[in-house]
Amino acid sequence: MSRFVAPIPSRRAFLQTVTGAASTAALAGQQPGGGDEPKIGWAVVGLGGLAQNQILPAFAKCRFSRVTGLVSGDPVKAARLAAQYGVNQRNIYNYGSYDQLASNPEIQAVYIVLPNGMHAEYTIRGAKAGKHILTEKPMANTPQDCRQMIDACRSANRKLMVAYRVRYEPHNMTAIQLARGREIGTLKVIVADAGFNIGDPTQWRLNAKLAGGGSLMDIGIYALQATRYITGEEPVEVKATQYSTPGDPRFKQVEETILFQLRFPGGVLANCSSSYGHAGTNRYRVLGDKGWIDLEPATSYTGLRLRVRKGSVIEEHNLNQADHFAAEMDHFSEAILRDGPVRTPGEDGLQDVRIMMAIYESARTGNTVRLTA
Amino acid sequence: MSRFVAPIPSRRAFLQTVTGAASTAALAGQQPGGGDEPKIGWAVVGLGGLAQNQILPAFAKCRFSRVTGLVSGDPVKAARLAAQYGVNQRNIYNYGSYDQLASNPEIQAVYIVLPNGMHAEYTIRGAKAGKHILTEKPMANTPQDCRQMIDACRSANRKLMVAYRVRYEPHNMTAIQLARGREIGTLKVIVADAGFNIGDPTQWRLNAKLAGGGSLMDIGIYALQATRYITGEEPVEVKATQYSTPGDPRFKQVEETILFQLRFPGGVLANCSSSYGHAGTNRYRVLGDKGWIDLEPATSYTGLRLRVRKGSVIEEHNLNQADHFAAEMDHFSEAILRDGPVRTPGEDGLQDVRIMMAIYESARTGNTVRLTA
Amino acid sequence: MSRFVAPIPSRRAFLQTVTGAASTAALAGQQPGGGDEPKIGWAVVGLGGLAQNQILPAFAKCRFSRVTGLVSGDPVKAARLAAQYGVNQRNIYNYGSYDQLASNPEIQAVYIVLPNGMHAEYTIRGAKAGKHILTEKPMANTPQDCRQMIDACRSANRKLMVAYRVRYEPHNMTAIQLARGREIGTLKVIVADAGFNIGDPTQWRLNAKLAGGGSLMDIGIYALQATRYITGEEPVEVKATQYSTPGDPRFKQVEETILFQLRFPGGVLANCSSSYGHAGTNRYRVLGDKGWIDLEPATSYTGLRLRVRKGSVIEEHNLNQADHFAAEMDHFSEAILRDGPVRTPGEDGLQDVRIMMAIYESARTGNTVRLTA
Amino acid sequence: MSRFVAPIPSRRAFLQTVTGAASTAALAGQQPGGGDEPKIGWAVVGLGGLAQNQILPAFAKCRFSRVTGLVSGDPVKAARLAAQYGVNQRNIYNYGSYDQLASNPEIQAVYIVLPNGMHAEYTIRGAKAGKHILTEKPMANTPQDCRQMIDACRSANRKLMVAYRVRYEPHNMTAIQLARGREIGTLKVIVADAGFNIGDPTQWRLNAKLAGGGSLMDIGIYALQATRYITGEEPVEVKATQYSTPGDPRFKQVEETILFQLRFPGGVLANCSSSYGHAGTNRYRVLGDKGWIDLEPATSYTGLRLRVRKGSVIEEHNLNQADHFAAEMDHFSEAILRDGPVRTPGEDGLQDVRIMMAIYESARTGNTVRLTA
Repeated sequence: MSRFVAPIPSRRAFLQTVTGAASTAALAGQQPGGGDEPKIGWAVVGLGGLAQNQILPAFAKCRFSRVTGLVSGDPVKAARLAAQYGVNQRNIYNYGSYDQLASNPEIQAVYIVLPNGMHAEYTIRGAKAGKHILTEKPMANTPQDCRQMIDACRSANRKLMVAYRVRYEPHNMTAIQLARGREIGTLKVIVADAGFNIGDPTQWRLNAKLAGGGSLMDIGIYALQATRYITGEEPVEVKATQYSTPGDPRFKQVEETILFQLRFPGGVLANCSSSYGHAGTNRYRVLGDKGWIDLEPATSYTGLRLRVRKGSVIEEHNLNQADHFAAEMDHFSEAILRDGPVRTPGEDGLQDVRIMMAIYESARTGNTVRLTA
Repeated sequence: MSRFVAPIPSRRAFLQTVTGAASTAALAGQQPGGGDEPKIGWAVVGLGGLAQNQILPAFAKCRFSRVTGLVSGDPVKAARLAAQYGVNQRNIYNYGSYDQLASNPEIQAVYIVLPNGMHAEYTIRGAKAGKHILTEKPMANTPQDCRQMIDACRSANRKLMVAYRVRYEPHNMTAIQLARGREIGTLKVIVADAGFNIGDPTQWRLNAKLAGGGSLMDIGIYALQATRYITGEEPVEVKATQYSTPGDPRFKQVEETILFQLRFPGGVLANCSSSYGHAGTNRYRVLGDKGWIDLEPATSYTGLRLRVRKGSVIEEHNLNQADHFAAEMDHFSEAILRDGPVRTPGEDGLQDVRIMMAIYESARTGNTVRLTA
Repeated sequence: MSRFVAPIPSRRAFLQTVTGAASTAALAGQQPGGGDEPKIGWAVVGLGGLAQNQILPAFAKCRFSRVTGLVSGDPVKAARLAAQYGVNQRNIYNYGSYDQLASNPEIQAVYIVLPNGMHAEYTIRGAKAGKHILTEKPMANTPQDCRQMIDACRSANRKLMVAYRVRYEPHNMTAIQLARGREIGTLKVIVADAGFNIGDPTQWRLNAKLAGGGSLMDIGIYALQATRYITGEEPVEVKATQYSTPGDPRFKQVEETILFQLRFPGGVLANCSSSYGHAGTNRYRVLGDKGWIDLEPATSYTGLRLRVRKGSVIEEHNLNQADHFAAEMDHFSEAILRDGPVRTPGEDGLQDVRIMMAIYESARTGNTVRLTA
Repeated sequence: MSRFVAPIPSRRAFLQTVTGAASTAALAGQQPGGGDEPKIGWAVVGLGGLAQNQILPAFAKCRFSRVTGLVSGDPVKAARLAAQYGVNQRNIYNYGSYDQLASNPEIQAVYIVLPNGMHAEYTIRGAKAGKHILTEKPMANTPQDCRQMIDACRSANRKLMVAYRVRYEPHNMTAIQLARGREIGTLKVIVADAGFNIGDPTQWRLNAKLAGGGSLMDIGIYALQATRYITGEEPVEVKATQYSTPGDPRFKQVEETILFQLRFPGGVLANCSSSYGHAGTNRYRVLGDKGWIDLEPATSYTGLRLRVRKGSVIEEHNLNQADHFAAEMDHFSEAILRDGPVRTPGEDGLQDVRIMMAIYESARTGNTVRLTA
């Protein structure tokens, strides 16, 4: 069926899993290299939990990417992580010295893992320093910022990519192939839900200036992205409803829950939700006139599950559980090495931000908001 | 936990199922009686597929209900079914002679299984004939009709119930108990989806006059009901989006797909969909701040599946797969025998019709529609 | 794939189930007839729980079978059930008058639902009375009894069938087709488990004379049967281990748990277990060199689940949840009406009893026991 | 319930998984350290697929373990891997120079990842060189070899552990706790299956001298181990049946499939299978008189799934998907650092080898084989 579908189980598969994950190393393009291949040198900008727990460890699984620089406001933490990951101590920067990356040939790409509200500044400064930019999602807090980021990278002749990691892992990629290959017939409805119960009220994700919004900007964006990459279309109309629990200290600045409906030009309707208030769900189901495609979980770091219903049979596909971060970084490194296009460029990130602004507008006004190309 | 949760498996359970259904006979209140108990005599009005395949066979599983009359426009079919189910041939009526039920003491209740647009007339005539009325859902095509039905039954001092069969089966009843018992904490979001790929374009369900609407009236009503019986609240605001495939002969008069958002006064938001266009899904998930409750399928005649997530554990509850029709009929018979209240009275059916009208209005105008008590 | 695989879901399927059961009426051959078709008249011999809860209600779903007689030692119970199921009171017999069936033309077949140790006598007397015989499993307590039953029916020119109901329902039938059609390649291993926690120590199933043995005779036979109907071969060698908890009042006469290994001539090995001591499992998995077929539950009255693994995909098949008893009775009635063969004749029942005797011998002696054709 | 059961999902859990794996870093004891903690230096002996794909990458997730030496017969491969994992080139050894480890203080422990038949020699030589020994399973080809390994380590005052990795990961550890904590009542039966379709006929696993046996030694050992660690008892009796497809070039020296029954002194019976011929299954189910515990897959590197049935509820536990190799290595390192006991010492490995010899004997002779303590 799909080239992502794993072959008949071997001994490795026995040991790895019957119903779950196979070695990331088994995924083509993720075989750790032996040092002979050219590798892009990366600086990680921002050393919070995501950087420490996911991104830095992922370099060990990369074929075309290695970490050669760190940018942090905390020199002790940076020095410790540099030692742990074999980064030369002279390649540690802070937010003041960030622009000096310009003179460091060991770093070709930066991965911006800062709060959303800082993505624009560090993308623009990074591009001016001559670096290719991978930025976390959402791309920025406003479409204006996104456009400036695109312009800055274009002016500097540097590549720009948004870190939509699930676009680089097999379950979502297979879902796209199945949906667009009409395996379930004509698409009719997509239902996508994202949410978790957010903790500490003082974290930056609950600060409007740093986060740009609430659950929608952080995780509803996964549901929104899914509707776009599954259909391959851009929505033309949105309606939204939001709610924040009065008195909950977490939701003084940003929304707790938001529901949004999307109309696509080909006739698909999408029904999405995101929430910082419930205990957690991340999933989507694509409903066609001949069956459905279901991912749950759809966006977790591991354990993704793809089921396809056709007629009276439900197929569960056991795909490789690739490391999403290694896959996206290697995609970007390859694009740099071969001077090729990236799958999720700045324009893709801008489009999500534009639509999220329309969703917020609809939630605020109660009106349907129409989107133009 | 719930009194619906089956006890430790016995030999019967072994043979019946490990993961699925136990005998309907094991459900309290459904033990077929030996003939000693008083039973309400029922006439089934309308002998289409639902009556033939589900309702007439269900009497064999009833404790308080037996079929003693048939009403049909097709005398040959009526005679054949009367013979099959042991109904006295003199208790066969047609739509003209329906009012003569008034003089037949063997029939105390009628079950109206006609197209939606006929529910009002046959409820009112049935009440005038002195019969208690169970009518299929949706109750009627308009709130006005619903109110007249309620008034007619009240005037005649007869009971009126709407055939929301899932309100009488263990999975949905357990979900209600769990949700209202705060097993998953404070409710935040409900996602409910209903749909199937409808066939023959000439069927009455696709005729606006007979059906009153499209997928929403027929199956979206299950999603809507679920949000109401889970929360125990009435929605105060709706937003909706609809779509019908241009040129599809099935959707000339009624909508194919409709999405609707509901806001509940306690803060719950619900995201629902219904469609006659996709290959089929019926499910809902209730998301609280401590876990979720999931039913899929949620409304099928059998095979319902209830899962509850709390923390890191997902529990699958293996409940009795009761016959929904036997359960609802016996509930109504018992209410008649004991002169007690019914769980889903006409007021409940009216409320769904009112909300569906608001959903249609929002889909038509693009505006948020507010609902008042 | 299989003719048992349901078609694309229709509205009926939506309402019936997505993941579970469809109407038994939808299964070919189970459509309740309208009274025009010829039907075999049946007497049910023994009116215990199985007869009352499963067999008598199943006649309502039969096309070729109707209940016209009852045989019981309890005249009050018999009279009540006769009234309930429309059996003429003159067609009630007791164990003394059983032979008078010979003169009753309204009864052509008898279904023997007595304790195992009584199957032989009532089969032989029934055949002498000119009736076709369907007997519950196990066929009898000894091979000698089985042979006498076969001989008696042959002499009387009557048909004899053993009530292996799962041979007549879609999940197991599909599993056979898939296995023999080499959908999972060459068969290698079958693992089959049956068990439940038996209750009342005084029941006949725990009486050696009435039951012929313990868990093996009652439910281990399902595991044994599965290995035979899946492979289509007869085992040539068995090894077994048994255990009964000392002091448990239930297991004074019969075994609690027994494990048995079977070697088939084509190279398949089967690993089976049965137990009256654990809380319940009924399942089997067929392992081929290209995938597996899994049924769990495999033998429950409803809720059976069939999954097939091929390569990296697991398919779950949503088949009709037929009424097993209606299906087996109609199969026998059709065989009588058309004078055709039965799928599970006495020879099949004899073979299981022969193998079970070998299993008991191996468990007793600790030796491998070889079986000859 | 268990301390391994993850808490209420956080944002991390949302992103990591709903139904699957959470970060290994979240497992206590696996948090990658910052370099401040003392770490044991390890040499990996044998650089085949397991070492390259699993063991060497796992050091990045260790808190108390780092790789400081490599032993290989292939100097080019060793040099490449040393460069990749930051091992000093002077710490590369071959099988001739292996004993020179004695003078290298940077290496305190060795992990023997050689073919089974070489475990004894390299354990004994390693112990003589003053190193602590972790050896892959099975411990050796014969009980005699196992005893010599135990003696050698005891004489050298070095620790010895067998790499039963699943004893160090949360699903199996939780299963043990639940079983021994009588969560499912009194244990009655264990069913355990292991198998995969082995490939290349020339590999060492199919060579009797190097492998010591076939599927049993390689993967049946997982099933055997599970019965022992779940019950906490040693079997007293075995029966076995084996089969190898005639003419299959893979099974000229070692068995393809073997079934074995085990009797435990407390009354539990276990039914196990292992095969190199079928397409793959690794699972076990523990059946008690109040429910069951099921792991499937049970031994894969990731994607393990734990379900517990109690009464009518099946609970699925979403536990951390720890890196098994990191966990076992850190356990050993901690035992060295604190001079504490190891969970799976040489005596444990010896016991499995003793039982496997008895299984082979029973399969060969057809007799029951009794085991003594």
